[in-house]
Amino acid sequence: MTSEMGTADSQGTFNIGKMEPGTSFMKEGWFYDVWDGQAYCHQIENVLFRKTTKYQEVLIFESKSSGKLLVLDGDVQCAEKDEFGYQEMIAHVPVACHPNPKNVLIVGGGDGGVIRELDKHSDIETITLCEIDEEVISACKEFMPSMAVGFSCKRLKLHIGDGFEFVKERRQAFDIIINDIPDRTPCNDLTDSIYSKDYYELVKAALKPNGIFMSQQPSVWGNLECARSVMEMSGDYFSVVDYNMCMIPSFPDMQGFVMCSLNQNTNFREPLRSLDGLDLKYYNSAVHRASFAVPEFARKKLQKVYKL
Amino acid sequence: MTSEMGTADSQGTFNIGKMEPGTSFMKEGWFYDVWDGQAYCHQIENVLFRKTTKYQEVLIFESKSSGKLLVLDGDVQCAEKDEFGYQEMIAHVPVACHPNPKNVLIVGGGDGGVIRELDKHSDIETITLCEIDEEVISACKEFMPSMAVGFSCKRLKLHIGDGFEFVKERRQAFDIIINDIPDRTPCNDLTDSIYSKDYYELVKAALKPNGIFMSQQPSVWGNLECARSVMEMSGDYFSVVDYNMCMIPSFPDMQGFVMCSLNQNTNFREPLRSLDGLDLKYYNSAVHRASFAVPEFARKKLQKVYKL
Repeated sequence: MTSEMGTADSQGTFNIGKMEPGTSFMKEGWFYDVWDGQAYCHQIENVLFRKTTKYQEVLIFESKSSGKLLVLDGDVQCAEKDEFGYQEMIAHVPVACHPNPKNVLIVGGGDGGVIRELDKHSDIETITLCEIDEEVISACKEFMPSMAVGFSCKRLKLHIGDGFEFVKERRQAFDIIINDIPDRTPCNDLTDSIYSKDYYELVKAALKPNGIFMSQQPSVWGNLECARSVMEMSGDYFSVVDYNMCMIPSFPDMQGFVMCSLNQNTNFREPLRSLDGLDLKYYNSAVHRASFAVPEFARKKLQKVYKL
Repeated sequence: MTSEMGTADSQGTFNIGKMEPGTSFMKEGWFYDVWDGQAYCHQIENVLFRKTTKYQEVLIFESKSSGKLLVLDGDVQCAEKDEFGYQEMIAHVPVACHPNPKNVLIVGGGDGGVIRELDKHSDIETITLCEIDEEVISACKEFMPSMAVGFSCKRLKLHIGDGFEFVKERRQAFDIIINDIPDRTPCNDLTDSIYSKDYYELVKAALKPNGIFMSQQPSVWGNLECARSVMEMSGDYFSVVDYNMCMIPSFPDMQGFVMCSLNQNTNFREPLRSLDGLDLKYYNSAVHRASFAVPEFARKKLQKVYKL
């Protein structure tokens, strides 16, 4: 987010020349999310929270047509209108693919939405969340309670701290680890802490035998090469690697996920059980299966690293 | 598109208050597509064509990151970057579901992209296109040849005229009719010519026994109630009605299609044959099947009118 964020222009005007790639800003009642040659804009009804924390710039505003939006360092993380699509897919797809998930770790996820979804599974015994920025949690508790309701989960173990360090200290502790963190920039840098090979090695060690790792990644439209390289790296640590997507309007380029399993018999594309009883809004078994069907141009590129 | 389109501001500034719902405009090197509380913007490299024809305002511009865009009356119709997704789905899904398609009619489709895709099927004998606005065709031939290449199809029968009148004069003439026309406004008005019940009755009569009708419709995100009402109306004329989607970045709300068949044995969800040999970029059999998996909130609403 640039320093212009939220500054009013005395003439009530806006110099479009400032729409530089990779910036985002608020001006004259609109939030502009700008990337290379494109911008997605939301009309602002009310700015609820804006603060530069120790780690990032946190913004929560009420939009005219998508409900409240959570924005971290200028990147839209979720909108009330369709966040259920993202949260349901990152939570329920791995759970539906694990035969007996008892202990789940979320790295990131400070809005609480993934906890909210995991809490619908009565068989899960502990849900651990490791979020680095406590101020994201407190802001969401105050202004986005529809997601932060997750923090009232009785089985929640909450840790404030760095995900890399937290995972480093665990051995065979989790059935499922879910990475719910912002996109990296630049995307292809695999040396940066939580996106690194070292992290994948630690995740593998922190998982129980047959554990599953689910991580959000760029989509095949936004950055196919990045998706491919993450899958390739994942193949060095896991027996089964696959890729699926979530389609919601707040992410015009789609949202991708790389799924990894230590169990060579895992078939992510076929859920082990139906979740019909959970009263979900986005996920069902057909949507689960369909999420793995990527456009042909992407399938050709990704199939080289599929373990299936 | 408002009258401001393309007008330069002497101060090089832009009053954001003009971002009214349902408008779109060009200003300071950006194209703004504005709808209720949201806007999707493309940086303009070069305006190639702009003219108010007898029927509509036609705009073609080269964008910075999505290739050339075709805009009719302010609505983005297609972008070079991902138009193949839309064109392949509206063309190949119905062809893959018909046992022996020989004669296909496209209503609209003046950019030529659907002809281009149908031309990949050597078994099809005639491809008829009825486009009301000849100037869309000539502009696309000059500025968007990657789509307008379709007009060099040897089996093409080209008619310039109103689709409603054209269909009215045909009886049992086509195996497949494809509606490739802009969204209606307002969406729920089913009395307006080519969106009316009368049109559906004419389409039914113009189809051969066991014919298929494929029409683009709003998505379940953009207007679920409209998708539902079109399906319900379709059920009055066709034995099988189903709904599928296409996910490409140029349409953040997705693109929906309502599919209808006079053959009660049609199962749109399972293609009758593989199209692997056609060297497509979006469509494959898995994508075909997956396109019918809609989010659970939409499935609940649409299942009441499914004939399957």
